[in-house]
Formats: sequence, structure tokens, C-alpha cells
Amino acid sequence: MTEQTTLAPLSSLSPAELEAFLESQRTAYAALQDRGLKLDLTRGKPSAEQLDLCNELLELPKGHKDASGTDVRNYGGLSGLPELRAMFADLLWVEPDQVVAGGNSSLTMMHDCLVQLLLHGGPDSPRPWVQEESVKFICPVPGYDRHFTMLASYGIEMLTVPMHDDGPDVEAVRELVKDPAVKGIWIVPTYANPSGSTCSQEVASALASMDTAAPDFRIFWDNAYAFHHLTEDEAKSADIITLASGSGHPNRPLMFASTSKITFAGAGVAFLAASQANVDWYLGHQQYASIGPDKVNQLRHVQFFGSADGVREHMARHREILAPKFAAVDAALESALAGRDVATWSKPSGGYFVNLDVLDRTASRVVELAKAAGIALTPAGASFPRGVDPNDRNIRLAPSFPVLAEVETAMAGVATCVLLAAAEKLAGVKG
Amino acid sequence: MTEQTTLAPLSSLSPAELEAFLESQRTAYAALQDRGLKLDLTRGKPSAEQLDLCNELLELPKGHKDASGTDVRNYGGLSGLPELRAMFADLLWVEPDQVVAGGNSSLTMMHDCLVQLLLHGGPDSPRPWVQEESVKFICPVPGYDRHFTMLASYGIEMLTVPMHDDGPDVEAVRELVKDPAVKGIWIVPTYANPSGSTCSQEVASALASMDTAAPDFRIFWDNAYAFHHLTEDEAKSADIITLASGSGHPNRPLMFASTSKITFAGAGVAFLAASQANVDWYLGHQQYASIGPDKVNQLRHVQFFGSADGVREHMARHREILAPKFAAVDAALESALAGRDVATWSKPSGGYFVNLDVLDRTASRVVELAKAAGIALTPAGASFPRGVDPNDRNIRLAPSFPVLAEVETAMAGVATCVLLAAAEKLAGVKG
Repeated sequence: MTEQTTLAPLSSLSPAELEAFLESQRTAYAALQDRGLKLDLTRGKPSAEQLDLCNELLELPKGHKDASGTDVRNYGGLSGLPELRAMFADLLWVEPDQVVAGGNSSLTMMHDCLVQLLLHGGPDSPRPWVQEESVKFICPVPGYDRHFTMLASYGIEMLTVPMHDDGPDVEAVRELVKDPAVKGIWIVPTYANPSGSTCSQEVASALASMDTAAPDFRIFWDNAYAFHHLTEDEAKSADIITLASGSGHPNRPLMFASTSKITFAGAGVAFLAASQANVDWYLGHQQYASIGPDKVNQLRHVQFFGSADGVREHMARHREILAPKFAAVDAALESALAGRDVATWSKPSGGYFVNLDVLDRTASRVVELAKAAGIALTPAGASFPRGVDPNDRNIRLAPSFPVLAEVETAMAGVATCVLLAAAEKLAGVKG
Repeated sequence: MTEQTTLAPLSSLSPAELEAFLESQRTAYAALQDRGLKLDLTRGKPSAEQLDLCNELLELPKGHKDASGTDVRNYGGLSGLPELRAMFADLLWVEPDQVVAGGNSSLTMMHDCLVQLLLHGGPDSPRPWVQEESVKFICPVPGYDRHFTMLASYGIEMLTVPMHDDGPDVEAVRELVKDPAVKGIWIVPTYANPSGSTCSQEVASALASMDTAAPDFRIFWDNAYAFHHLTEDEAKSADIITLASGSGHPNRPLMFASTSKITFAGAGVAFLAASQANVDWYLGHQQYASIGPDKVNQLRHVQFFGSADGVREHMARHREILAPKFAAVDAALESALAGRDVATWSKPSGGYFVNLDVLDRTASRVVELAKAAGIALTPAGASFPRGVDPNDRNIRLAPSFPVLAEVETAMAGVATCVLLAAAEKLAGVKG
């Protein structure tokens, strides 16, 4: 407990103590730089060890026919292999008819939906969204940078609401959806990127049932981490499709999932799950744009998993690899920062990220310091629309890709950068 | 030669002879119906025998790294595996940097381009195409139905020009491009669908260099059959990208190709080849819509082919399977129709289709008769925008999918239907 007692809040230090502390951190940082590290905590990428779990896929499929006798090598089958749709319908609590198994990227399926909403509108749209005066989306923050960059690329205005432990701030959302230009919200509902929080059944119910001025309001429900538990206390995704259907807004949610962080990140299968009308709408446009998904790869996945339980069992193997890395992040931050009152961080029970909030106005400096010491972090502000964190406080840590020892090394370094940046700030020193 | 002399033009028969002929064809058709056939000549799908040529792909790739050491299982690599891009750059006569290796469908890449032209415009566009008063495309006819249906789905007006043996009618095109609303032309330049004709270097040069009122006029150059020769007299695709670059319109052509009819139709790799500015433009938008293509499948293809010559050698094996089927189509039509003056048909030296022109106003009847006899043909008019052939004359025959004996049977049946429909027409009998 000796060390623990020395960790007083930085803000409580006297000017002389702070100066001494700043010096000590400069020394620590110089030592860090001298190590010549080259580590990367930027993206939520599976590690080679995780990818190795699926190397059997490289030798599959055996044969080239699905259960119905369809030759998976040929054209066709726009909605995907029936047995794979059934497997993920089970996992996502929908009917097989409500699932489309697509290509290798759920981001692409989300993009397809957004593009068709823009160019054609949805089943409940009075007109294509490009014909509206303006289109706005609600973005819980911190959130996933790829959602924001896609919206920005189409000139869609982004309105932020806070992301809480149980999902987006419902009251803030209710207020915004009174504007008919607000056409959607984009959520990572389970083990959110980057906060790790999971949308509760209550919040989901409120989002599904609330009145919206836009008749074609859409919830882009990016359930990327639905099965990506880090503990045995498994979060249960809210059943948004049933909730929306039950409250008279069946077409409101579009759910997306994929095996990108289950099998091979770049060679998995993506899924859309939605109301029958939405599925018909999606396929109705997709028929002009595709000769059908890669059914060979879908059969590969069917044979690899065997069943929905096969997916669940496989995720336990990922957990064994990932959980120690997340523990290492927490341990490094706890060890260096506890009591200092210069940072808070999430302790996620699933997903791919740790959300680190540092002293206001120091996140960019921390990322800059880390970079100069050979530790690549996601740019500060990346979890906010247009990359601007109004408090310059938020940093997304992605510990999945490096090996465990590298995570430990990198995180000790990050902690040093957090402390140095905080000390600089409090001492009024320009970094 | 006995039979040959009996085949007088139907139009030269006396009323009594025509009545007798009609009766004989009714009898032949009744016999055809009695056979209870179930044959399909509708789509240009590879046969199981062709797909079997690539079954080695089902056990590839060996390993999971490309030549540069990149782990192909993970995210990233938006432009595709360098060695696969280099292989197809060689085949398509462009630089590797001008090639993007994508997903499993060139139709999807064409759709991506069209969507981005609509929503953002191209590198030379004054504004996104959705902000234009109207957008029109030139469609050589007969042409590929999927081009037409995609254009129609976005409300793009289609202006037809005749497709000749050497490509689209250049004078007709020149006239149309004086209208600034005419933003593009969509061509299958090599062994065209369905005419089989190949765009000559002269026609390509004219299209590449002509003045267009639209500064962002685009040639969608769907080179789907670039390597799909049926004889040793191999057509050479016109080098549209060099021609356009040389005449000051480098961004005009967007070339598309794929391995869909080289390896597995549904699990191949698609390619975009274009100017550097177009490639940058494409990837600049694609970065928001994709986590990268399926690089595992790309590595599979690299290992399967080995080299550009490997692709060429592989195509010779397809030819061995396909050429007899095309010969059977020609033999059946020749045997039944020569001299009758009720049909003309193409004798393609590559590609996937035979273009059959029957007596005006009888194509729909032929397709209807064939259907009732268990022979599925592509709907009459499918090779024209909105499915309307103004002369009701054109039928697209696709002999690749059935086995040879079925092609022979089906085509003898089709010939019977052509003769019966013609006799009905000439005799003034309502079918």
C-alpha cells in the first residue's frame, strides 16, 4: 500500500511539488523515448493469435453444395445461404427471413442502406433523402469514427448526445427527433465503441417507441460486438427489432452484425437483420447492384461453426486471448494513475476498446507524446463527429492487436504520457 | 444437299404450301411439348464442368500472407493485393496503380461508381449528378439487361444507339453527346453481351476522343469477356484507357473486369482499371464504405493462377468446354433455318451469348412457345432498355450452363419454335 499512498491528486500538489513531479515525468518520458518502441493501439483489429483460431477456414469448404443442393460456386442467392441465415437468426433473435447474409463488411451493408435511403428513401419515406432540405443524424458520443466519417462524406449533419452506461441519453434524443430533418441515430448497442457500455432494454424500448417527426426515422443498430464478451457476465443485446415491431415502428431499426471479429476480420460474412419490409427493400435495390454474395465463403463459415452454439463456443476462445490484454490495460492505468485524479477509464466487460478520459485539454498532447515515443494511438477526437472532441479529453485504446507483453509496455508508456501531459497542463507549461 | 434445296424462304411459299408448312410445324411442336423438357438457356452462367476447373480454389490459400508479408486475414488493403493487381494490370494493359482488386462482383463496382457519380460527381464534375436537371446514358442495343435495369433504378434516361460488328454506332453517339445531360455510355467492348461483337480500336478511339458537352462524360467499359475466346482467333480489346489518356480525356473511361467467368462465378474477384485520378476518386469514397476487400480470396486467386499466363492458359480450358456448345447452337439453327429467311444469328468467337434475330414481331411468341415446351429463354426484349425491343425480334441465347446434349436438344426445340412462330405470322394466324 506504500505506493498507493504516494499517489495524491496532482491538483493538490504545491507548486514546488508539481514542478518536481513534472521533472520526474520528463525523465520517465525521456527513458520511454529511449526505448525506441514501435507499438500500435490504434484500431480494433484481431491479433494474429485470434486469427489463428480460424485457420481451418483456409481449407474449407469441403464440397461445394449447400444443404439444399445449390452449387455455391455459381451466381445467385442474393439473400445468402439459408443455413447461415438461420444460424445468425438464432444468434440475433430474429426469423431467418429477416436476415440477409452478405459480403465481408457490415460497414458496406450500412453504406448500402444509407445510399439507398439517400437515393430512393426507405419503405416509409415521403421522398428520397437527397430531396430533403437537410438530413441530420443523432450521434451518441463518444462513438465510432467510421460512422461519423461516412455521414460526413454525404454532408449529413451530426448532432451529438451523451453516451451513458445504459446507452444514448434518451431525453436528449427525444428532444432532437422533434425536428423532421433528423432521420436517424447510429448506435453500437452492445459493448459500444469506444465506451464499452451496453444499451439497456429500457433505453432500446424508448428509442423504438418514441415519437419522431420524421416518418422514416432509422436506428442504425451496429451490433458489431453482440457476442464479444470479455467476462462470464455476458451482456444481452436489447431486442430492438421486436421492441420496434411491438411499438408500431417495425421498419425503424436496421441491425448489422458480422463475423469480422469472430473469424477473419477481412474475410468474414456480414449480416443485416430487419423487418420483412426492410429486408425486401434492401434486396429490392441490391438486386441491381450485386450478382449475389460470396456463397463459397458463407458455406465455409457454415461448416466451420456447425451451429449457433459453435459460434458461442468459438467466442469463448477469443475471450481467453483478449481478457488478459484488457486486464493489462487496466492494471497499467491503475498502477500509474490511481489517486492522481487526472484520468478515468472504462473497465469493459466486452468489445474491443477501453475508453480513456484524461484531463481536459490534454488528450491531443497525450497522443502526440505517445507518438513521439513510438506508441501509435487513435487520434484524439476520433470518437467525435468531424474528429473534434470539445473537451479534448477522450482517447480510445485498442489493445486487441499487439501481443500481451506489448500491451503492457505500451500502456505503461501511455500512462507516463498522461501524467506528463497533466503535469504540464497544471503547471501551465506549454507542451 | 438434298435438304438444303427444300429450305425455301417461307415468304416465297404459296398460301397452300404455307398452310402445309404451318401444320407440319404444329406437329413438330406438339412432339416437342410431349417430350416434357426442362431446359434453361436464360443466363450466362458457367456450367458445373467449368466450375470444376477451379476446385483447387476450395483448398487454397496455402498460408495467409501475401508477398509483402501482409496478413491477408485481417482488415485493410482497400485497393487489393498488390500481386493480384499486378497480374490483372498485365492482362488489362495498365499499370498496377491503375487497378483496384475488389470484391466478388464487378456489377457492384460499377454500381459503386454510379452511386458516387450521383452523390458526389466525378473528378471532372461541376456538381453531383443528382443535382443535374436530368441524367441520360447512351445504351448500345442489343445490350446487357443488368446495365439497363441499374440505370432505370436510378431514373436515368436511356438513349439507344445501334450496336454494330465493330462496336456502337459512332455517328449516333456523336450526335447524342452534344446534349450536356448525356453523362455516359455503357459498353461491353469485347465479345459483347449479347451480340458478340468487339469494339474496334477505331471505334474506341472515336469514343475516347470525341467532344462531349458534359465535361464529366463517362465510358463504363464493362470488359467482362476480355479473355473469353471461343476460337484461336482471339479478339484484342481496344486499349480505351491509353486512347482516352492520349486524347486528353484520361478520366473518361472506367474499365471493369472480373474472374466471375474465369474461376467461380459467385466467388471471384472484380477489378476496376482507370486513370490515377479515377482510382483515387474511387478509393477516396470507398474508404468510407469498406474495411477492404476479401484478401484471403484474392490470395487464393494469386496462388491458383500463378501469373497472367496462368489466366490465359486457364481460359483455354474453358474454351474447350464452351466451343462445342456454341457450335451446337449454330448447327441446330443452321440445320433447321438455313434458307428459310426467318432468322439471322451471330457466330461469336468469344463471350457467352448467341444473338438470335427472328422475324419481326415474333420474338415474344418464340419465347412463349419455348417456355410452354419446357425451354426457358431470356425474355424477349431483355437486351433493350426497359425490356422493350421495338421490333420484337431479338432473342439472347445463353448456351454455357446446360451440358452439351441439353444444348442440342434445347436448340432443336428453339428452332421449331422460331419456324412455328414465323409460319403463324406469315399465315396471319394468331399464335
